[in-house]
Amino acid sequence: MEYHDSEKAQEVAGRVEAFMDEVVLPLEREMLATGDTISNDELAELWEMAKERDLFAPQMPEEYGGQGLDFADMLPSFEQVGRSLIGAHSIRANAPQEGNMHTLEMVGTEEQKEEYLRPLVQGEMTSGFSMTEPMQGGGSDPKMLQTTAIKDGDEWVVNGHKWWTSDGWDADFFLVMARTDLDEHPYAGTSIILVPRETEGVELVRNVGHLGAPELLEASGGHAEIKYNDVRVPVENTVGEEGKGFQIAQMRLGGGRLTHCMRYSGMAERALEISKAYLSEREGFGSDLAEKQTLRQRIADAETKLHMARCGVRHAARELDRSEARIEVAMSKVYTANVCNEIMDLAVQCLGANGVANDLPVAAFYGDVRAFRLFDGPDEVHRRTIARHAFEDVATEEIEHALRFDEDRIVDELKREAPADD
Amino acid sequence: MEYHDSEKAQEVAGRVEAFMDEVVLPLEREMLATGDTISNDELAELWEMAKERDLFAPQMPEEYGGQGLDFADMLPSFEQVGRSLIGAHSIRANAPQEGNMHTLEMVGTEEQKEEYLRPLVQGEMTSGFSMTEPMQGGGSDPKMLQTTAIKDGDEWVVNGHKWWTSDGWDADFFLVMARTDLDEHPYAGTSIILVPRETEGVELVRNVGHLGAPELLEASGGHAEIKYNDVRVPVENTVGEEGKGFQIAQMRLGGGRLTHCMRYSGMAERALEISKAYLSEREGFGSDLAEKQTLRQRIADAETKLHMARCGVRHAARELDRSEARIEVAMSKVYTANVCNEIMDLAVQCLGANGVANDLPVAAFYGDVRAFRLFDGPDEVHRRTIARHAFEDVATEEIEHALRFDEDRIVDELKREAPADD
Amino acid sequence: MEYHDSEKAQEVAGRVEAFMDEVVLPLEREMLATGDTISNDELAELWEMAKERDLFAPQMPEEYGGQGLDFADMLPSFEQVGRSLIGAHSIRANAPQEGNMHTLEMVGTEEQKEEYLRPLVQGEMTSGFSMTEPMQGGGSDPKMLQTTAIKDGDEWVVNGHKWWTSDGWDADFFLVMARTDLDEHPYAGTSIILVPRETEGVELVRNVGHLGAPELLEASGGHAEIKYNDVRVPVENTVGEEGKGFQIAQMRLGGGRLTHCMRYSGMAERALEISKAYLSEREGFGSDLAEKQTLRQRIADAETKLHMARCGVRHAARELDRSEARIEVAMSKVYTANVCNEIMDLAVQCLGANGVANDLPVAAFYGDVRAFRLFDGPDEVHRRTIARHAFEDVATEEIEHALRFDEDRIVDELKREAPADD
Amino acid sequence: MEYHDSEKAQEVAGRVEAFMDEVVLPLEREMLATGDTISNDELAELWEMAKERDLFAPQMPEEYGGQGLDFADMLPSFEQVGRSLIGAHSIRANAPQEGNMHTLEMVGTEEQKEEYLRPLVQGEMTSGFSMTEPMQGGGSDPKMLQTTAIKDGDEWVVNGHKWWTSDGWDADFFLVMARTDLDEHPYAGTSIILVPRETEGVELVRNVGHLGAPELLEASGGHAEIKYNDVRVPVENTVGEEGKGFQIAQMRLGGGRLTHCMRYSGMAERALEISKAYLSEREGFGSDLAEKQTLRQRIADAETKLHMARCGVRHAARELDRSEARIEVAMSKVYTANVCNEIMDLAVQCLGANGVANDLPVAAFYGDVRAFRLFDGPDEVHRRTIARHAFEDVATEEIEHALRFDEDRIVDELKREAPADD
Repeated sequence: MEYHDSEKAQEVAGRVEAFMDEVVLPLEREMLATGDTISNDELAELWEMAKERDLFAPQMPEEYGGQGLDFADMLPSFEQVGRSLIGAHSIRANAPQEGNMHTLEMVGTEEQKEEYLRPLVQGEMTSGFSMTEPMQGGGSDPKMLQTTAIKDGDEWVVNGHKWWTSDGWDADFFLVMARTDLDEHPYAGTSIILVPRETEGVELVRNVGHLGAPELLEASGGHAEIKYNDVRVPVENTVGEEGKGFQIAQMRLGGGRLTHCMRYSGMAERALEISKAYLSEREGFGSDLAEKQTLRQRIADAETKLHMARCGVRHAARELDRSEARIEVAMSKVYTANVCNEIMDLAVQCLGANGVANDLPVAAFYGDVRAFRLFDGPDEVHRRTIARHAFEDVATEEIEHALRFDEDRIVDELKREAPADD
Repeated sequence: MEYHDSEKAQEVAGRVEAFMDEVVLPLEREMLATGDTISNDELAELWEMAKERDLFAPQMPEEYGGQGLDFADMLPSFEQVGRSLIGAHSIRANAPQEGNMHTLEMVGTEEQKEEYLRPLVQGEMTSGFSMTEPMQGGGSDPKMLQTTAIKDGDEWVVNGHKWWTSDGWDADFFLVMARTDLDEHPYAGTSIILVPRETEGVELVRNVGHLGAPELLEASGGHAEIKYNDVRVPVENTVGEEGKGFQIAQMRLGGGRLTHCMRYSGMAERALEISKAYLSEREGFGSDLAEKQTLRQRIADAETKLHMARCGVRHAARELDRSEARIEVAMSKVYTANVCNEIMDLAVQCLGANGVANDLPVAAFYGDVRAFRLFDGPDEVHRRTIARHAFEDVATEEIEHALRFDEDRIVDELKREAPADD
Repeated sequence: MEYHDSEKAQEVAGRVEAFMDEVVLPLEREMLATGDTISNDELAELWEMAKERDLFAPQMPEEYGGQGLDFADMLPSFEQVGRSLIGAHSIRANAPQEGNMHTLEMVGTEEQKEEYLRPLVQGEMTSGFSMTEPMQGGGSDPKMLQTTAIKDGDEWVVNGHKWWTSDGWDADFFLVMARTDLDEHPYAGTSIILVPRETEGVELVRNVGHLGAPELLEASGGHAEIKYNDVRVPVENTVGEEGKGFQIAQMRLGGGRLTHCMRYSGMAERALEISKAYLSEREGFGSDLAEKQTLRQRIADAETKLHMARCGVRHAARELDRSEARIEVAMSKVYTANVCNEIMDLAVQCLGANGVANDLPVAAFYGDVRAFRLFDGPDEVHRRTIARHAFEDVATEEIEHALRFDEDRIVDELKREAPADD
Repeated sequence: MEYHDSEKAQEVAGRVEAFMDEVVLPLEREMLATGDTISNDELAELWEMAKERDLFAPQMPEEYGGQGLDFADMLPSFEQVGRSLIGAHSIRANAPQEGNMHTLEMVGTEEQKEEYLRPLVQGEMTSGFSMTEPMQGGGSDPKMLQTTAIKDGDEWVVNGHKWWTSDGWDADFFLVMARTDLDEHPYAGTSIILVPRETEGVELVRNVGHLGAPELLEASGGHAEIKYNDVRVPVENTVGEEGKGFQIAQMRLGGGRLTHCMRYSGMAERALEISKAYLSEREGFGSDLAEKQTLRQRIADAETKLHMARCGVRHAARELDRSEARIEVAMSKVYTANVCNEIMDLAVQCLGANGVANDLPVAAFYGDVRAFRLFDGPDEVHRRTIARHAFEDVATEEIEHALRFDEDRIVDELKREAPADD
């Protein structure tokens, strides 16, 4: 399918695809077959190969060692890395590193960029985004935020309890969402504080066990539960303007939602590739694989919906490069998340017992993709945003007409008789 | 929502929208409220108004009186006309006129263009496309075509039985699909023959009663059942190359499928407008309309899927302007048809009893849109096309891996022991 | 499928089935083929035949001429009559006659039974249930009821505006829901008043045009819009206890919802029969009917869901014969309505163009069944009822555990620090 | 909800429920909270407690120590044990032990019953059912069976490769499906051979890693991959009649499918309980939990579908106690499996991040339930069975009518003209 991406976007994506096909997918297959994990040293080697091919951190400015791609142009590359369980990690296009780099680049000070952004882009550091708290459930309600950072002289004193901090176990520092002005509504009184992991009082409680994949990377630290107990950092560690934490997080999340869409679209495409390969070959053995026709028709629907998602995400990326694109991103997120879930379910069904066994990546995809309908805002929250927008511009002339037959004709006459309390 | 349509496309669509809002929708509402139909004279008046606004037959070349828009540029205008039950008719952007004009413009002779295309573009003639036959069910299987046209001197002698010929009751002439070379496979031996209605042997059996709307137009001739009994027309009445009937029909249908998507997207948008207006206002009366929240969330989903459809149709229109775009069109058709059906169902649910009463256009939309999943190829046929394409480029390296765990490890050892007949 | 119905139930149902197969279905087919309607005289003949076979009004006590079946026992007979567009009418098992007879039998005075119930059971009178009002939309919110009946001496003076009164055009009398005590909440101050059609002030405004079937019966009066203008009837015309209108209506509707489920299950079964017949035969012509396999699998799902509905409705009927069975009925209604809608949609898809043409009953089924998700309470209202019940008996020990991980561990420590206003 | 189960069924189920609430669920919660697993000794203690309460192996005859319940009567007890991840194990009502006991009881010799069945019922032995082979994918196609058992004197020599043998790692013996007559079709030439694990040549390759739960039991051996290399056992180890392996397996699977439905219904009920508890309590914290209304409506639908499944499974159990009930079981299996999958998906959505974390059992339920649409025959195979049955008794009079409008009227006239090869 030709998607009219820019020449630059296609050129980079072509090289990413080659890296996936030649290096990453074969490695992933080997790990799944053997049950081994990739050590940190092996990951560093992968990164070297990606850098040699000029593929590392493609969404970052060239001055930091990235490829300088905007959302529209990074899109096909991010689809490519999504095809493998270790694809995004292999070129550091994975969440949360990618979003944290984006944040530091947008609002960080020059010092923060030198001390933290550059090493992130180089793969010399790892970071966590410490936002979700146990009280918030899935983190969808910012008003529930309870972590605080209180100024004491030149220092912030951070106290709080977080979980689902991705890559948290291996992180060198955290971007912590904390209330810094308790007299303000959380939307207005929250800031992002950079906390190095080695600071006193940072307590890594555990990695939250969860549905999903066998971990292929030694480094992939799962989702940490962390307590911040009277943690002191200099006030210079404020990331972006004080009190603007939610606005910055929203910017971060807008892009993050869309890059998730890109990666998961690639994952869905891979699952379809494997399913089609399996169905095609089984056919060769004389088995009709129990109602192949039905599965083929369902694959056609899956391809169609994935195509629609990819069109919609491209539309949103073009918008996001020039505006906030809140509705476009919300639509893309909720649609892509649901389509990718459907596709993984279909892939499992096509593959039978192989679909739930860890020998192929599909079982891991299936467990992994479920959370996509929850994190970065569950479906219901995005639908609420979309509905609110949809109901803003109600066609008033339609109202008159729509109600004409149950009201206009009778309201006047009945109004007088209606009981006063009704 | 901003769709990045061209300036020209937006300019024309803006004027079409104004025509709908100022003239067509008020007229539609009046007809629904009174139960009246629009006479042919009143339709002619509508056409005059559309011509004065330079909106008539927007998809036709300017030399014939149209606006010269290609698929990408006619798109937002066609969405606009779809909003009303009489919108497409009001500017002659309705099927089958629109597709027939497109066909004559593409492959007609100069004489045919003067004698038939120009009057069609001017609204002075009406035409039918006589393809579907009773034996074919929904017309999906061209191999079942039984109508024949046999050369006898300078004349074709046409015999056959057709139904579902839209606008057939009022048509001045028909484009008839007929087998002209019985020794060839129907794909290769079929031609399109232009048959004036007044020719001897043309027998209009009946209008097929069907699910759907109250007819708002006197002229809208429903879907005719027609017999062609030894009908003789000159061989010059062949439309396009002899024996290429299916290829021409495919070209015609490709565009027709996409313009249907555009119009039905507009219809779905209108249904959502009415639903939102109704829900908004009911709220004002203190009623929570039984689980409004749920309906709002479903409307958010409807808006999202319609948005995805509109992105996908735009992508396909851009492709169709420069290629056959077979898969893009098939995906757009099957997806848009299903989304529009879902949306009409939702609109009926939002409107309650008003959703099934003829006072509002939604009941008519609901009946009308159902056929969209059948005509121009039912869902199953498009999915077959899409699946065939999807299975063309199966990733061979995935095959090896996908089967590795149920075959490679054991095939060799077991093969020897397997019973010979297995 | 064997459903363990009682011997009596099976015996009657067997005779109803024979009547349908021998008399009613052939007549229905003839009407559809010719476009004719059944005159009132012809309907009377049908009724004579049903009476001769001891099938008329099977749910009524034998003393009135019925068969004395309770809900569990009438069930398979009602499924049978649902198979035809005119089946329920042919033995007077149709709504609203059936529910009105049930109401009069339950709460009518001896005089009302003699004057109105007996002629209803004999087919000598027809009745309407005048409940829904334009302000209520689909009639789901009883608090919106605006029709009043004010006592003036020995008479009720009824004023109000109703619509969707089924069979209203042909009714000899109406059971009118009206507020009789304006100081009470509508639930407590509403009564049912019997109003003969010929009473002065009864104004039949129109039949509401609506989505659906070609009418096969001259007598089937559609759904009337009626105004009651200072209509005076004796206070003896109160049906059941004064002020208990809603309680009586609920009893009536509980049974009515379940008999609707029975009839529509039969309709769905017929649609599947036609679809299977069509698919089977088309196969014989060498056509694979575009992805027959897929349609077969979808038919398997349709059969499965219909089977589940029939099991659930049977369970509810057994309960309703001995209790209010509110949740069982609500579940049966919302489930059956949705399954029957799905099945009609599938049948249309199986039949292609024949599915939307009026030559077969399926197009009429499709239009007709849509309203089943709206009348007698839309889906959303039943789901609310079910949810309210489901949340009544929440497992408290699960609460503790469910919240343990986002609250117990942290609530204590954080509570102290949480800002006072949170 | 009252399900009209027999008094005996209700009495036992009540005691099972108490055991779950008092002993099993608290233990499960403790394991999830601590991440510990239950050792074999602890499991033995659980069994003692279950035996003391007369709950162990309730489906087995009393002479072996069971409760002697038939399918209809064991049903509510099996629903109860399904509520916990360790419930079925705690009273030995888990697959495959339960099905293997059923098999030995049905067709085993007296010696086999004494040597293997009695210890199974006592919990002194564990068994595996070794049927699925890698070549079969999900095991749905018995014709692909490749394992052989060849007679050599008084011994069977078994060779083959199996996987997905549940509890295989801990099993003391296996029931192995093997082709014993290579000249026969597998349906007729297959037998079940009992192979003690310690026999020479039995090679346990690995436990197949798969999607799903954290394992709570030390003993739960996952799904083993096993090779049988020239394994020799006495011919007396044939279980049931030689050559009747498939027939016996079908009997075993029929019951097994239904007991799976019972257990998974209980699991779904538990997931709903947790979801409702969570939503209820969150409400107390002032959060509206993002569109609670929508989730409540979806829970209402979930409760409704689960109710329908439970009605359908009860119907099937009554049938299975007196017939093969092939279609009833197939419908129950495919319906329940899909409903339970839907419900787990909903539960995860209700619980947000807690839905995918291992702290609650829901994440494990979600992974576990996915396989239910694959094992014991994937959806597609059951739908094929149902469809085959549905198309057996096509209504011939409907065929005539259904085709009347596209064929009868025209076939005769057109047949003559149709090209010979068409």
